[in-house]
Parts: sequence; structure tokens; C-alpha cells
Amino acid sequence: MSKAFAVIAGVGPGTGASCARRFASAYPVALLARSPENYEGLVQEINKSGGKAIGISTDVSSEDSVKSAFKKISDEFGGGACAAAVFNASGRFARKPFLEMSVQDFRGSWEVSVQGAVIFSQAALPHLLKHAEDKSAKYPPTLIFTGATASVKANAQMSGFAAPKFALKALSTSLAKEFAPKGVHVAHAVIDGVIDIPRTKDWLKDMPPEAKISADDIAESYWNLHTQSKRCFTNDIDIRPMLEKW
Amino acid sequence: MSKAFAVIAGVGPGTGASCARRFASAYPVALLARSPENYEGLVQEINKSGGKAIGISTDVSSEDSVKSAFKKISDEFGGGACAAAVFNASGRFARKPFLEMSVQDFRGSWEVSVQGAVIFSQAALPHLLKHAEDKSAKYPPTLIFTGATASVKANAQMSGFAAPKFALKALSTSLAKEFAPKGVHVAHAVIDGVIDIPRTKDWLKDMPPEAKISADDIAESYWNLHTQSKRCFTNDIDIRPMLEKW
Amino acid sequence: MSKAFAVIAGVGPGTGASCARRFASAYPVALLARSPENYEGLVQEINKSGGKAIGISTDVSSEDSVKSAFKKISDEFGGGACAAAVFNASGRFARKPFLEMSVQDFRGSWEVSVQGAVIFSQAALPHLLKHAEDKSAKYPPTLIFTGATASVKANAQMSGFAAPKFALKALSTSLAKEFAPKGVHVAHAVIDGVIDIPRTKDWLKDMPPEAKISADDIAESYWNLHTQSKRCFTNDIDIRPMLEKW
Amino acid sequence: MSKAFAVIAGVGPGTGASCARRFASAYPVALLARSPENYEGLVQEINKSGGKAIGISTDVSSEDSVKSAFKKISDEFGGGACAAAVFNASGRFARKPFLEMSVQDFRGSWEVSVQGAVIFSQAALPHLLKHAEDKSAKYPPTLIFTGATASVKANAQMSGFAAPKFALKALSTSLAKEFAPKGVHVAHAVIDGVIDIPRTKDWLKDMPPEAKISADDIAESYWNLHTQSKRCFTNDIDIRPMLEKW
Repeated sequence: MSKAFAVIAGVGPGTGASCARRFASAYPVALLARSPENYEGLVQEINKSGGKAIGISTDVSSEDSVKSAFKKISDEFGGGACAAAVFNASGRFARKPFLEMSVQDFRGSWEVSVQGAVIFSQAALPHLLKHAEDKSAKYPPTLIFTGATASVKANAQMSGFAAPKFALKALSTSLAKEFAPKGVHVAHAVIDGVIDIPRTKDWLKDMPPEAKISADDIAESYWNLHTQSKRCFTNDIDIRPMLEKW
Repeated sequence: MSKAFAVIAGVGPGTGASCARRFASAYPVALLARSPENYEGLVQEINKSGGKAIGISTDVSSEDSVKSAFKKISDEFGGGACAAAVFNASGRFARKPFLEMSVQDFRGSWEVSVQGAVIFSQAALPHLLKHAEDKSAKYPPTLIFTGATASVKANAQMSGFAAPKFALKALSTSLAKEFAPKGVHVAHAVIDGVIDIPRTKDWLKDMPPEAKISADDIAESYWNLHTQSKRCFTNDIDIRPMLEKW
Repeated sequence: MSKAFAVIAGVGPGTGASCARRFASAYPVALLARSPENYEGLVQEINKSGGKAIGISTDVSSEDSVKSAFKKISDEFGGGACAAAVFNASGRFARKPFLEMSVQDFRGSWEVSVQGAVIFSQAALPHLLKHAEDKSAKYPPTLIFTGATASVKANAQMSGFAAPKFALKALSTSLAKEFAPKGVHVAHAVIDGVIDIPRTKDWLKDMPPEAKISADDIAESYWNLHTQSKRCFTNDIDIRPMLEKW
Repeated sequence: MSKAFAVIAGVGPGTGASCARRFASAYPVALLARSPENYEGLVQEINKSGGKAIGISTDVSSEDSVKSAFKKISDEFGGGACAAAVFNASGRFARKPFLEMSVQDFRGSWEVSVQGAVIFSQAALPHLLKHAEDKSAKYPPTLIFTGATASVKANAQMSGFAAPKFALKALSTSLAKEFAPKGVHVAHAVIDGVIDIPRTKDWLKDMPPEAKISADDIAESYWNLHTQSKRCFTNDIDIRPMLEKW
């Protein structure tokens, strides 16, 4: 099998899993997450339903770990061209008074959200560039970063989350400008609202379903970004549910 | 025929015509332009190829003209629900030293780009809201505004274009916030680059095709906005060709 | 008397009056407002306290009215160089559902806030440029526009205010880029909060004084913009009180 | 001596030195820089001319180093209230293709520009808060961050500089919102242009002096931020020379 692959970093029960399913309808997919329980069931599901998926336990903040993951992807899928890479990982954070936040917490959030994005992009881009040279490719290779409200809005007690998210958006824009002329489509999505996943089941409980974002619909929007032609690249989108206040 | 219609204001040879064709694949379309030559051939083309289209000579800066156009649309298409409304009109402008710009020129640009957008939105929204109540509707009703680089960047000698475009973006955001809870999806697109139309044939001549935006691809992106679910509204996108410097 | 003058458009009991007093400490000032009651007492006060002020009843949305005002200023103050021009006028608006807003209301708001700013700038700039050529001038000539929260944030039901304010910001930036190389400093201030004036006396009543902005302090900030050198122009500032939520 | 102090981190021959001189006219100043040669002459100059200054060799990216510096400041100046803290440090970077940038370079830039800002802020804020409680204080305590064009614009091959600078702006906004209600004024300045310092002597050589920013004038603008009252906080300014293209 030498078909171009898709790779999703930060696969959990929400956006990552939905992207995995959506892109698996067109490409073999590699799913990266720190904990195998985040991808194991999904890998099985995709492989059973006619797709092709592998899961790789990966720490995106570590160059060695990501390099090793991409080597494994190349070995498994052959060829080495990447059609789509989605960076969906995010450092943990908890809203807290600035003077109570430890430098280590701040650093840890950045190491996943930003350093992880750099490492992932440096690993994925050679494969995306390879796909850009494939004249038979149906769609331009696409690198997508998942952002949040905090990518454009820095609230009180949220610097540990907002600072990395602002930085990620800057990274995305810089890469979009550098790699578009080489045929790679880089995009950033501000996810502005609560995604409807098991963990958020009890949030906004008294509201109708339109108060939360559907992860499958995010994945569909990412897919639509992927299918844009070289003559129509969207580099920035926002996404929110119908009932979001903003 | 009682099916929901689509309406495109500002139909010319570029984005407007492409949107007309794209949305005509799903809905009867009403094409508004000041000069009938901007829609006549297109109306014929769509009707011949199995779609349904009407053209209406309209001055979007005039309430009477727009009201009359929407009355004609209701009469022709019946029912009155609108699935998609695209505001693609733009006032004329010419880069010139600020002290040489006439107040009348500045005003004329605003009357089409902003006042026109208000008038068009006020005419379309009751029909869009009607569609929002239709439980059998496939996609949420969508109101899309076409912006430009000048929507977010105000260059020297360009205030006559940038001021209305900034205003249009504000209008779009305000409407998005007011009408999303009522089920209407409002979006704004920053078209950042030269669209490949007859008028721009000689621009960027020495560059490959990827230096210009394809109008058909803009229309496809607008269609993708339209198909987003209530749990995943994108309110702002940008669009540029692969070779754009930004 | 041939000293450069300052001119304030939109003089009321708040920012305009405070700017008048502040700039009157250095320049003869011309105060423009539609209604003479907005400047009469202030003109007396300034003239009594050793400054020099004139008031001119002006409709900033009318070219004739503004041209006539500037002719009167030149006649009164002689010379014709303008050291500082502050555009502080703003159209009226009332938050209301978009479908209940009349096009005439929307237009009226724009005519003062944006068309007025264009007319005022076109009248003031020749005088500002004249001052830019005066090698003995202490500070570069300055043109300042007063914006609002709505200059950067378009809320639901506020398009009649936000659209013009976004447009005004675009105008300010465009003029800043065109006229800085000619020595004129153009700046825009986003006033984000309630200004402490008689009309707002009962607002935020249970809050300490730091919940409202001091108009005198806005004027001081405008003065500080004015005193910046050609090697350090600030084009955008925001201003809010200590207790503002944003 | 128990008077409130000012502290400048990132003292070099430009903005830092100018801020040191400007704030030394009102407060004893502590100058932090990694290399003593960056502050030694300046400390002498200030002390000779009637001010009071100390220099402390500090690595802002290290918590221990910054804590030790603030302990030394308290010991030297007594009292412990801080009237103004300026974070002017910036990681090194060199424009280079993304795939040639090492993760270590990216990290190093972030460690100074962002982690350094967090560490510095955590050390300075207790002293700033102490000053906020001093009813005899002339001006509200002020924390200022120096940004760059890259704080709001992420160009190709510049992610190693832009990502940290975007993050720093987010940090500044988040701190502004958290600490304004407690009386601390936090501000961020986008320095958009070349500062006129020995290192840039040969840049823009054929242009007049107005093509570069004067560091003394930046310091004056910072001082003006410092003197704003609690009823008029500016949180964001930009600064550029008259002849800057933007």
C-alpha cells in the first residue's frame, strides 16, 4: 500500500476521533495519543469498517517520540506522502490566580500545545511536501491546527492556556505563509464553545443540543478545508454552536 | 413550486455567477444585479441545464428596489423560505489621495457596500427565518457576506474601500450573534487576492494559475459554509490563492 | 495672532470639553458642536481663564457647514496652521433588533460618525500639513479620532453603532499610513467603558469611581499622543477604567 | 530609603537603557540583564547624575535567578513597593526556514520571551500590589511588556519569534484583566520598526532619522502609560516611526 496517509495527533473522544473517522474514509490514518486507550477502540472500529488505521503511543512534546512515530507510520503505510495532518493536542491547564500558577504548569501547557505543534509539523511537513509533488493527488496536502476561544481572547487567570494558544495561531499563520507557495495548505480553527463529548455531558445540561459543538461536524469542516483547491485556501476559520454567546 | 430559494446579490462574472451556479444545483436561485447583462446569460444557462433561475435588475442601495425584488422572488418561487442569501455587491472605488477623494465617492461606495448589505439583509432575513422553522430543511439557512483584504487591512489611499468593508464585517458579526440563536447562520468571507475573471485576465500574467483565486472554488467554500450544521457554525473565513503574499 | 490652533469636533460635556480645556493650555481652540449650548459656557470659561476659544455651530455631516467652520477658524485665528484636530463626534444610536432598525437610522449614524470624520479630516488636513512644515513647531500635528468598544467588537443589535465605528477605525489607519510620511500623526482611541459625565451619573451607581472613565484623563492621554515625536508615533490606544470587565 | 522602586528587565543599549534613565528621574531603579556590561555604565551614569540605580546580573528565564534579583532589590531599596516594572527582554532568533529551525532554538526563544515574562511578573506583582495599597502613591503601579511587529503579525520563517511574541501579548492581556481590579496597570507595547541603537546604525542608512524609532521616546511613552490614572488605563499601544511602512 503506497497511498498517502493522514495523521491525527491528539486523539481523544472528541475532535481527534471524529477526524480519524472522517479522514479514514479516504486515507489510511495514523492516530497519535499518549495513552493507547485513547485510540485502541477507534483503530479497531476503523479497521473493521473497511478503513485502515494504526495507533501509536506518542508524546508530542518529545522530538524522539514523534520521530519514532513517523518512522513507524512510514514503515506501516509505505510511500511516505501525507495528505492531511491534524494537530489536535493541547496541554492541560486549570484556571487559577496567576500568582498561584507554577512556572512548571505554564511550561507544561506550552510544551504540548506549542513545542508539540512545532515538533509534529517538522515531522509531518516533509511528508506533506512529498504529497504536494504528487500530480495525481486529489487535494492539496493539508496541515490543520485546532485552536480555542483562548487563541484570540486572553481572559483573567487563563494565561497558562491563552499564551500557548495565541502562540499556536502565530505558528499556523507563519507556516501557512511559508508552505503555501510549496503547495501545502495550512489552516487554524478557533473552536469557540463546548464540544459535546462524554467529559462535558453534564455541562449546559439545561440547554438544547445546539448549545454544544458536534465533534463530527468539526471533522467535516476540517475535511472541507482539506478539499479546497490551490486556488482557494482558507487559513483561518472559527467554529461555534448556534447557541453560543460570543 | 414551494421549495426554498437562494438569492445572490451582486452577480457579475466572478463570485456571484459561480455562487449562482453552485446554489442552483440545490435551489431555485434569484440573481440580483443592477445591469441585466450581468445575469441574463447566466439565467438562461441555469434554466437550460435543469436548474431554475430568475434575474432581477436591482439597486441594492435602494430599499424600494430591493423590496420590489424580494416581492418578485416570492411571487415567482412561492413559499417564501430562503435557504441561502449571498451578498456579493461592492461599491466602486479607486485608490486615490485622500484629499482628492470626493465625499460623494466615499458615500457612494458605502451606500452599496454597507447600506446595501443592511437593506438586503433586512429583506432576506424574514425569509431565512421562515426556513429556520422548516424542520424538513436539510441545512440551516445561511446569509453570507463577501469581504476583501480591505475588510481587515486599511491601507493608505484606500479609506473609501476599507471603511465600508470594515463596516460590513461588523454588520456580519452583529447579525451572526443576533440571528444564530434563531437558527440563521451568518458568515463573512475575506477574499484576499485577485479573483480570476475576464477583467483581471492581464493581471499577474507571468504567474501560474495558482496566483489567482478561482471563483468556482469560492462558491464551493460558500456552499460548504451553507452545509454546516447548527452545532458547527463558522462565522469567519479567509480565502486566498496558494501564491498570495500576505 | 498667528499661532497654530487646535480644533475639537463633537464638543459635549465629556471628552470634547476636557480636550478643549487641555489643548487650550497650549493653543487657541475652536470648538465645533451642532448646538451652541454645548460650547458656550466652555468658550467663556477658557477665555476667562487666560486661554483663547471660539465656538462654531457645525453639522459635521455637512461639507458646507464644516468648510464654513474652518473658514471662520482661519479668519479668527489667522495663520492657518493646525496643531491638533480631535474628532469626537458620534452618531446617535439605540440598541434595537436589526429588523426594527430603519435604514434611515443606520444612515444617520454613519453620516455623523464616518462621513463626518471624512469631511472633518479633509478640512483639517491642509492645516495640519501646514503645521508639519513649520520647523519651529514643538510637536508634530496630530489628528485624533475617538472610538468606542464597538470599534473592535460588534455585538448583537448594535450594527448601527458598530459598523460606523469599525469604519472610523479603518479611516484612521488609512490616514495614519498616508499622512505620517508627511509629518501628520493620526491616532485612534478605543474608549472602552462608561465616561463619567452628567448623563451617566446614575449608571454604575453602586460602584466606586474607578468603574468609570475620567474625561479629563482621556484628554490627558490625547495630549500625550500629541506630544509624541516623529520618531515615536502611537496610532492606536485603548482606554478603560480600572474596574472595567473586558 | 523606603521609596517605591522601578525595575527594568532586559536592559541593553536601547529601550531598556532609556527606560532606566526615564524612570530613574522618579524612582530608584533596578536594572536586570544577563551581562553586567549591559548595565554597568548606565548604573554609574544614573548614580552620578543624582538618581539611584543598581544593576543585577539576571537570567530572566530562571526562577531562582529572578527571585534572587528581587531579594537583592528589596534589600537594597527597602520597603518593597514597586511603582513600575518593565519587561523588555526578548529571546534571540534568526529568520530561517522552519525545517531548519531546531526545537532547541524555538524553545530558547520562548524561555526568555514568555517563561521569562511569567517569572518576572510573578516576582514583580507582589511588589506592585504593595504599591497599589499605598494611598500616597502618585501613580498606579505599572507593569509594561515590550512587544514587536511579530506580536500581531506572524510572517514566514519567523515562527520562532512570532509565537513567543503572540504569547507575551496574551499574557499581558490576561494579567491586565486579573490585576486591574487590584489597582495594577498592565500594558503592552507593539514596537513596530527599527529602534535607533548602535547595532542598527547601518540599517536604513539612506533614510532620514524619522525612519527609526527613538528609544528615549519609547521610554517617554512608557512613562506616560505609568502616569495614567485608575480611571484611564491604556492596555495596548503601538509605536512606529513617522516613515514606517505598515
